[in-house]
Amino acid sequence: MSSDRAPWETPRDAGLLSPVTAGAGDAASDRAVVEHLAGAELALLRAFVAAGLAPAHVRDAAYRAAAGPWYGIDLAALAHASVEGGNPVLPFLPLLRERLARIDPDAATWVHRGATSQDILDTALMSLGTSVAGAVGTELRWAASSLVALAEAHRDDPAVARTLTQHAVPTTLGLKAATWLRAVLHARRRLAEASARLPAQLGGAGGTLASFVALFGADAAARLPALYAHELGLQAPDAPWHTDRWPVTELGDALAAVVAAAGMVASDVAQLARTEVGEAAVAAGGGSSAMPQKQNPVDAVLVRSAALRAPGLAAQLHLAAGLAVDERPDGAWHAEWPALQELMRLALGASAAVARLARGLTLDADRARANLGLTGGLVVSERLSIVLVPLIGRDRFDALVADAVAGADLRDLVRALPEASGLDLADLLDPTAYAGLSGVLVEQAVRRARQDGIRP
Amino acid sequence: MSSDRAPWETPRDAGLLSPVTAGAGDAASDRAVVEHLAGAELALLRAFVAAGLAPAHVRDAAYRAAAGPWYGIDLAALAHASVEGGNPVLPFLPLLRERLARIDPDAATWVHRGATSQDILDTALMSLGTSVAGAVGTELRWAASSLVALAEAHRDDPAVARTLTQHAVPTTLGLKAATWLRAVLHARRRLAEASARLPAQLGGAGGTLASFVALFGADAAARLPALYAHELGLQAPDAPWHTDRWPVTELGDALAAVVAAAGMVASDVAQLARTEVGEAAVAAGGGSSAMPQKQNPVDAVLVRSAALRAPGLAAQLHLAAGLAVDERPDGAWHAEWPALQELMRLALGASAAVARLARGLTLDADRARANLGLTGGLVVSERLSIVLVPLIGRDRFDALVADAVAGADLRDLVRALPEASGLDLADLLDPTAYAGLSGVLVEQAVRRARQDGIRP
Amino acid sequence: MSSDRAPWETPRDAGLLSPVTAGAGDAASDRAVVEHLAGAELALLRAFVAAGLAPAHVRDAAYRAAAGPWYGIDLAALAHASVEGGNPVLPFLPLLRERLARIDPDAATWVHRGATSQDILDTALMSLGTSVAGAVGTELRWAASSLVALAEAHRDDPAVARTLTQHAVPTTLGLKAATWLRAVLHARRRLAEASARLPAQLGGAGGTLASFVALFGADAAARLPALYAHELGLQAPDAPWHTDRWPVTELGDALAAVVAAAGMVASDVAQLARTEVGEAAVAAGGGSSAMPQKQNPVDAVLVRSAALRAPGLAAQLHLAAGLAVDERPDGAWHAEWPALQELMRLALGASAAVARLARGLTLDADRARANLGLTGGLVVSERLSIVLVPLIGRDRFDALVADAVAGADLRDLVRALPEASGLDLADLLDPTAYAGLSGVLVEQAVRRARQDGIRP
Amino acid sequence: MSSDRAPWETPRDAGLLSPVTAGAGDAASDRAVVEHLAGAELALLRAFVAAGLAPAHVRDAAYRAAAGPWYGIDLAALAHASVEGGNPVLPFLPLLRERLARIDPDAATWVHRGATSQDILDTALMSLGTSVAGAVGTELRWAASSLVALAEAHRDDPAVARTLTQHAVPTTLGLKAATWLRAVLHARRRLAEASARLPAQLGGAGGTLASFVALFGADAAARLPALYAHELGLQAPDAPWHTDRWPVTELGDALAAVVAAAGMVASDVAQLARTEVGEAAVAAGGGSSAMPQKQNPVDAVLVRSAALRAPGLAAQLHLAAGLAVDERPDGAWHAEWPALQELMRLALGASAAVARLARGLTLDADRARANLGLTGGLVVSERLSIVLVPLIGRDRFDALVADAVAGADLRDLVRALPEASGLDLADLLDPTAYAGLSGVLVEQAVRRARQDGIRP
Repeated sequence: MSSDRAPWETPRDAGLLSPVTAGAGDAASDRAVVEHLAGAELALLRAFVAAGLAPAHVRDAAYRAAAGPWYGIDLAALAHASVEGGNPVLPFLPLLRERLARIDPDAATWVHRGATSQDILDTALMSLGTSVAGAVGTELRWAASSLVALAEAHRDDPAVARTLTQHAVPTTLGLKAATWLRAVLHARRRLAEASARLPAQLGGAGGTLASFVALFGADAAARLPALYAHELGLQAPDAPWHTDRWPVTELGDALAAVVAAAGMVASDVAQLARTEVGEAAVAAGGGSSAMPQKQNPVDAVLVRSAALRAPGLAAQLHLAAGLAVDERPDGAWHAEWPALQELMRLALGASAAVARLARGLTLDADRARANLGLTGGLVVSERLSIVLVPLIGRDRFDALVADAVAGADLRDLVRALPEASGLDLADLLDPTAYAGLSGVLVEQAVRRARQDGIRP
Repeated sequence: MSSDRAPWETPRDAGLLSPVTAGAGDAASDRAVVEHLAGAELALLRAFVAAGLAPAHVRDAAYRAAAGPWYGIDLAALAHASVEGGNPVLPFLPLLRERLARIDPDAATWVHRGATSQDILDTALMSLGTSVAGAVGTELRWAASSLVALAEAHRDDPAVARTLTQHAVPTTLGLKAATWLRAVLHARRRLAEASARLPAQLGGAGGTLASFVALFGADAAARLPALYAHELGLQAPDAPWHTDRWPVTELGDALAAVVAAAGMVASDVAQLARTEVGEAAVAAGGGSSAMPQKQNPVDAVLVRSAALRAPGLAAQLHLAAGLAVDERPDGAWHAEWPALQELMRLALGASAAVARLARGLTLDADRARANLGLTGGLVVSERLSIVLVPLIGRDRFDALVADAVAGADLRDLVRALPEASGLDLADLLDPTAYAGLSGVLVEQAVRRARQDGIRP
Repeated sequence: MSSDRAPWETPRDAGLLSPVTAGAGDAASDRAVVEHLAGAELALLRAFVAAGLAPAHVRDAAYRAAAGPWYGIDLAALAHASVEGGNPVLPFLPLLRERLARIDPDAATWVHRGATSQDILDTALMSLGTSVAGAVGTELRWAASSLVALAEAHRDDPAVARTLTQHAVPTTLGLKAATWLRAVLHARRRLAEASARLPAQLGGAGGTLASFVALFGADAAARLPALYAHELGLQAPDAPWHTDRWPVTELGDALAAVVAAAGMVASDVAQLARTEVGEAAVAAGGGSSAMPQKQNPVDAVLVRSAALRAPGLAAQLHLAAGLAVDERPDGAWHAEWPALQELMRLALGASAAVARLARGLTLDADRARANLGLTGGLVVSERLSIVLVPLIGRDRFDALVADAVAGADLRDLVRALPEASGLDLADLLDPTAYAGLSGVLVEQAVRRARQDGIRP
Repeated sequence: MSSDRAPWETPRDAGLLSPVTAGAGDAASDRAVVEHLAGAELALLRAFVAAGLAPAHVRDAAYRAAAGPWYGIDLAALAHASVEGGNPVLPFLPLLRERLARIDPDAATWVHRGATSQDILDTALMSLGTSVAGAVGTELRWAASSLVALAEAHRDDPAVARTLTQHAVPTTLGLKAATWLRAVLHARRRLAEASARLPAQLGGAGGTLASFVALFGADAAARLPALYAHELGLQAPDAPWHTDRWPVTELGDALAAVVAAAGMVASDVAQLARTEVGEAAVAAGGGSSAMPQKQNPVDAVLVRSAALRAPGLAAQLHLAAGLAVDERPDGAWHAEWPALQELMRLALGASAAVARLARGLTLDADRARANLGLTGGLVVSERLSIVLVPLIGRDRFDALVADAVAGADLRDLVRALPEASGLDLADLLDPTAYAGLSGVLVEQAVRRARQDGIRP
């Protein structure tokens, strides 16, 4: 873990204090941002060719420039250079032009023609968003795959449903897993939906496309945005959206929804993995040097930390959208970028961690069944009330339950009721016979997952 | 403004410190919540009838009970009674049963059968959400209608585009209005889309529907959720979503997007209405007793206050979703209700205020044209660079602009260029001739609005 | 729970969806706001007298007007009237003048002289803040009192310390309670400190006090702010702080810290009260109609809901402070009011609920001791490693623990070590002998509480 | 801007999308975190010596190890290694031991004895916080120094006070600068106060110090925390605060207050620098390649972006504090780190940017005076009402102002009043004669700044 870097090469942030994103978050790193900035600039060159404005060799040069690695860029220097102009596009342009000039000097003259830095940065972030959404979707697919297997394997394993921390009624381990599955897949669909709508940005300095009109005429200018979007696999914009920020908030909302879904799974697993509960065990728990016996559910803990962080970042984006003044805002636009980037990292990290978590997750049917019995049968009191209250009245029923809560044996109390003589008491008092539609709900969730292409 | 209420009848909150919601927010008041709680409970009775489980007269009684006013309920007492059990459904039930018993004693026995309080509260909030979304949509329609008129009236009125607070390039007043229009309508469509997806909730205490199975058998239990949803005009749920909170976050995100769109319009209007700018004037500005000359853009200010508040509330919902543990969470569920209610109020208030704002808004074409000239023609320097740099080179061009910034007359400087002799200098230096596609963009925005049924 | 109010008298918000504030939050109700608005206006009259500017009878009239009840004000009408001017001070002034005129017509002419609405509203909120801080402090005092008793009673009752959800090392129930105690008292001191610094506001329309200079001369104007603050028990302001909002953010931060401290206690109690853990029992748990056996820790759940909501409100205040532009901001000021009011309500509600929670809390020493044994003695593995690793080396020690984790009896494994023959194995393996300084820490916490005047 | 790093050496985040922190934020970089982690571990060795537990040469070795550069650590690898255990302390320990062993093998055996990873990470963050607070204080001192000069230079330059975006009454440029000065210095004092209270953390795995008792006895264990804190210049903790997170929230609140103060200055400057207003000019505005005439107030824009981001991060810390369950929380602790780090970066970046902004700021007295006249004298209508209403009554006064608003010359209207014949109309209508105590307020602010050691 040592390196030969000179001090000035030190990265500002390697994710040291954000373990949930330390590995998986790299797909939204500054390196990835630079690649998408390059991608956005170079796609504009290809759009010029597609519009018949630039010669065909410009397209070839653009492809060649994009193919080369962008590793050589000193990100820290680029970041510092961004301070003066307020965004990274301005200092990136000479780097790009220089690189392109080495391939094709004429192509280099086409770089950034008519564009404003917001066109490029917005487009790059949408393009990055599409790429991140794909990676997140893949992780969620892995998670769902494991959850399908858990739901099916534990379809009928009885367990207790807890509400407000207390044992409430019976359910199954399978239904718990099926609920996680549904949440994960809903979030996955929503992200896919949002990312499929993301538009490119092309408006020029004031959002009128006047520079493109001046350069190429009104007809060509009107066709450019759609051609540009096409080159990047983005949607053609209705119009420039420099201050109408729905693409940013909708992407952010969908990323936050992914983290929330992962957080819900992780919160449940963390509870089920508690020493006293023991219904869930994680595969590779974080060890403790001082306490070697511990198996910490680290992935669940890290996902929960992401679930505490993501909502504020999504809020940042809505806030910036609501303050998007003039034709380019005086701070609100700039507040979007780091929030969106960190939200992408959290979605990447949380989805990867929930996939690991689900893959290594063991549910303990014996322990779940044992826990179900902890209240001495009172977990079926709702069912008892449905059956007994019509026979013995609410007052006597409440007294009976009170006796059981005080320590009397519930079975004895029920058996002693003359009115209960005709009932199947074994069934009535069996928690596993009061799981409602849990089996059906598991099947439906699995079937829905298969429609999404998920296999265990 | 005096009343005869006894002290104990005092409302806790009349919106005194939240003027943006003081009027319009009533559609999401506690009174409205009670009506939707009643609606959710009574719809369950009708669903029992629809499923063939309850006799037909129960449906009639449910309709009659719903029709009567719910004003008699003492909301403050109900709120206090909610503390003990943690939610308002429990203390509401006896009130509902009593009222129904007066209409039809048998019907009263069907109230809340098999349901858990979360079924009712979640369903009531979704039903309230649909209703609020409708009201917000109507206000946004009014706003859009006024904005269509402004966009068309000022289609070609030149104005300056400002970026990072500074004059950048020309645009038009019409394009400013068209951008507002597009933002408002996009938010309106998103809210309509989200509200059309909202499901009813019906799962029983543990989300297994076991109580309904015990009461009515598995087949009937399986059919009940869709029948229940149908009675309320909500979507049939895939499954109980007690801990899979996407309906809440998606509604919240869409409401926040409405407030952000309104906030963007208001932020622009507040800037344009500044004394020094004067391009926008509001109709009924808030007066000042001490400074009678002031016309404060109060609606814009209030909408901006909403835009600062809404994002945090939407974040609250994502946070709660990510912490939704067990089969009913220990605080996260409870944190949703006030956030969603206040978000509804803000969307109602902000949409109503932006509708008022748009209706009373006057754009001043003369002032806009005058402002466009404030930089002595430098506002067309982008166009000049497109035309002149190829003729005189970047260095000479930069020197020319520097001279103009230092005070020299830009027109004289350009006319003095031998290379510029063949150019149409009047056109080249005319800011109004550099508005790009603004006219086309206005037309497209108006056309899109008409597709949404908006008329000026 | 029915009332005779006419529909139009309906309160907008009775706290129905915010049970945590439904009762205790009334001290920050709109009614309280109106009383403090009146208090702020009337204190200005008394300050005029104190400065020798107004005749003495104005002071008497101000006191008499303040003494009368303000119940007669129709809050809903006042709220609606606030929309036009954007704040409630403007429509409140005629009500106040009318009331005062009935007592002393001359005094009525002194109302609001030279003041701007922000002077009054800011001062009223600081005054309300002081009052709320006092009420919160009282509740926290009750909570602390109960926690002192718990800490002392359970000083040496062994329990398990849990980290990342897993059993880690031994501790005591007393230390858990002492940690809660310390958190609550620290938050109480911080709130008292913050509230003791709150200044009055008096600057006139532009923060120059020009109106007071024009009315009374520069000397009197310079003395007025301190005299005004003195009348309200607030601090004399350094200068007008219309756009320097530290008083608002510091109050908000301290209120949020109170809610966080309560939230930490509640989060612990909710975990300890879980059916499987059972180390804590709450007094008056929320019942469930369907599941009569349940004792929900409702107060803990409600406090946790407050802990999820308060941070965003405090953030609102910092956001508004950072956007406080011009001499009165265009929305940021307005966004403060509802956030500060709701934060006050949450602090009131959470402190009252944590006081109730602590008062009714029972810690179960037997259950705690039983839980401590759940890992078969491995909970002392840290101590074992301290003692045994020097004797047998890290490798053999790790192997020994691995055997115990796999099911072997830890005591047997240790007893079988030749190197351990000289050790007091009973002590070494006794979890209750590895509680460190827990007893001392309990005593210190209790002693510190006594210094704050807390008694059990 | 190219580098020779291999791809795998790529930093995850160089601040590319966060220009406000790109330069100044390095003091809170991951590198700085590692240095403070090392500092926290090594201080524990020195505390062992101070307590008489370890031999003196351990202290020397600790100093020598701290002195060496920590650049060799591969941060990215360390970050990746943090994922498994959930925090960076565990993988850092072998690196530290190895380095220390090269200096003094015996000293290496003392590393981390008795400590838990939270002891080290919490302490390191407090130590980093102290260091960052110092750096921020220095930047704010520079900012204040420039603001003192501006306030004094423009003490009596008339300007307009704007409320709700509209011209309200006269003020001075000096008072604007004095208000910025006061805000900046208040925030600086608060941060210094908060950072002076930050405690070290030392509690062992469960917060009982049991490991230290086992290693060194109860007396030594009781003395260790204060000795440890002393080595780092931190406060001795009252008790372990693993779950009582006031040190984190109070530091966070104070950092957020710094950003808000900077944001308020920047928001004002951004408004005053608008092309139409022109009362402020920034030194080194961000240029625009396409629009060479623009001088963007980039520092103000970047500070405003920080002001939109910081509140949510401070909220994160309160949220984590309220969810601090058990003896080490399952995600809430982990959510603190990145929020605190980014908040430090924002405070560093915003304070540096506001210092640059203030240093390069020019206020234009001529333009301010010209703007003051834009409403044709109506800016003194408040003063006119104070003087004229007693003479001519409210109705006639309102009519007079209405005439002036409609275009009549205010001076003529006033001169035409018979009742005004005895008044000094030149003075009465002179905006510069209605600046109230602005001069005095400037002097007081400057005097207060001098007490803090600020010189222009």
